[in-house]
Amino acid sequence: LPMVAKIATDDYVGFTFFVGCMAMMAASAFFFLSMNGFDRKWRASILVSGIITFIAAVHYWYMRDYWAANGESPTFFRYVDWVLTVPLMCVEFYLILKVAGAKKSLMWRLIFLSVIMLVTGYFGEAVYRDQAQIWGLISGIAYFVIVYDIWLGKAKKLAQEAGGAVLQAHKTLCWFVLVGWAIYPIGYMAGTPGWYEGIFGGLALDVVYNIGDAINKIGFGLVVYNLAVTATKSEE
Amino acid sequence: LPMVAKIATDDYVGFTFFVGCMAMMAASAFFFLSMNGFDRKWRASILVSGIITFIAAVHYWYMRDYWAANGESPTFFRYVDWVLTVPLMCVEFYLILKVAGAKKSLMWRLIFLSVIMLVTGYFGEAVYRDQAQIWGLISGIAYFVIVYDIWLGKAKKLAQEAGGAVLQAHKTLCWFVLVGWAIYPIGYMAGTPGWYEGIFGGLALDVVYNIGDAINKIGFGLVVYNLAVTATKSEE
Ligand SMILES: CC1=C(/C=C/C(C)=C/C=C/C(C)=C/C=O)C(C)(C)CCC1
Ligand SMILES: CC1=C(/C=C/C(C)=C/C=C/C(C)=C/C=O)C(C)(C)CCC1
Repeated sequence: LPMVAKIATDDYVGFTFFVGCMAMMAASAFFFLSMNGFDRKWRASILVSGIITFIAAVHYWYMRDYWAANGESPTFFRYVDWVLTVPLMCVEFYLILKVAGAKKSLMWRLIFLSVIMLVTGYFGEAVYRDQAQIWGLISGIAYFVIVYDIWLGKAKKLAQEAGGAVLQAHKTLCWFVLVGWAIYPIGYMAGTPGWYEGIFGGLALDVVYNIGDAINKIGFGLVVYNLAVTATKSEE
Repeated sequence: LPMVAKIATDDYVGFTFFVGCMAMMAASAFFFLSMNGFDRKWRASILVSGIITFIAAVHYWYMRDYWAANGESPTFFRYVDWVLTVPLMCVEFYLILKVAGAKKSLMWRLIFLSVIMLVTGYFGEAVYRDQAQIWGLISGIAYFVIVYDIWLGKAKKLAQEAGGAVLQAHKTLCWFVLVGWAIYPIGYMAGTPGWYEGIFGGLALDVVYNIGDAINKIGFGLVVYNLAVTATKSEE
């Protein structure tokens, strides 16, 4: 017999897991199938956009089933997903700034910071919950350094040198990191003990994360796609 | 009901199995989808990079579940994986040196040595554990000959004749074999009885192997990818 879980019609968390999973699969098909229509220099960026949503699609597939089976937040799988997709988003920053001469060191710096942010976040959220505040603080500092680097540091200078469509895309991605990514620390505070308890309690954590992921991963990819479209047009 | 294992949040071995599995899938998508953007002479090399990570993705899928179900090292599956992927890495050496006139005999020699290395290693680790030292020694000699061949033997001469980006890539791959692959004999000594007991005991074997595999397979593939990118650019 085919195994398909019955899901309660008012299970909104389950609903967003299913919608999220399909949206990620659809986005991957979109990026993968459109990449070859662009000039070589944009292909790697669009391919990486597709890889990010593909990784998410696989994890949403587990998380959906995990939720249906256990009625619990699949924190473990979220972090498996993030530890791969967030560094890849750092790679995207590098790839679009390469035209302006970005060095690999910029990429490795962002990747390193993002891994610190996620590993310490995982410790606070899943392993050493009693010390969630201190782990969250370290994670937050790494997040802050990333925000600083792309908004005001070297990445910003490179984007300005590139100008035009690249500068525009870089700015939009910076807003994603500042506003879109800020959803996650809010989720963390809603889900761990600390001075912030009571402010963010009672949020349906997974609904927030699921919507945030869709915006951050698919939206991020679409910005890169759009950059390729605009740049291709202006070259014609 | 869908079957998704619950995994303890501090099960780092499980975590690296999941991250490794997804990283291998993502890398395969990356290599498979980018290969056609390159000139014909690079396509086979990039395709083989993708095949290597694809084989690993499938085995990590088993190993992940094996670990979740039994809490035991999936040694059997690791060797099934290695006996296919390691010879394919030898093929990669041949493929990138073909431009300099590498002969198939070089490839077969490396393949033969790698199979000897793995079969004797499997006997020592999984079948005749009492004689782990002697099997490990034979395996180590084969490993040593591979290292010699690529660092100082015929492969090196060919790389020097090719020069440029090929020489650079060959050198990087040589470092992978000397340093990256050295992880595995350490794992062997940590997991079998012998004079070396006590030196390497207590290591979380699978975490080490999982990180090693990710570096050796994906990193190896990226070196080849990078060679194709560099060579394509300098030809334009
Ligand atoms: C600052 C901070 C965090 C930040 C997490 C972020 C920024 C995650 C981003 C995820 C993305 C972008 C996923 C995919 O789209 C944690 C780890 C919750 C821990 C608490 C402090
Ligand atoms: C020398 C030696 C070994 C070497 C194993 C190696 C070198 C494995 C390489 C695996 C790779 C590269 C996998 C995929 O990425 C064994 C068999 C552990 C047995 C003990 C002696």
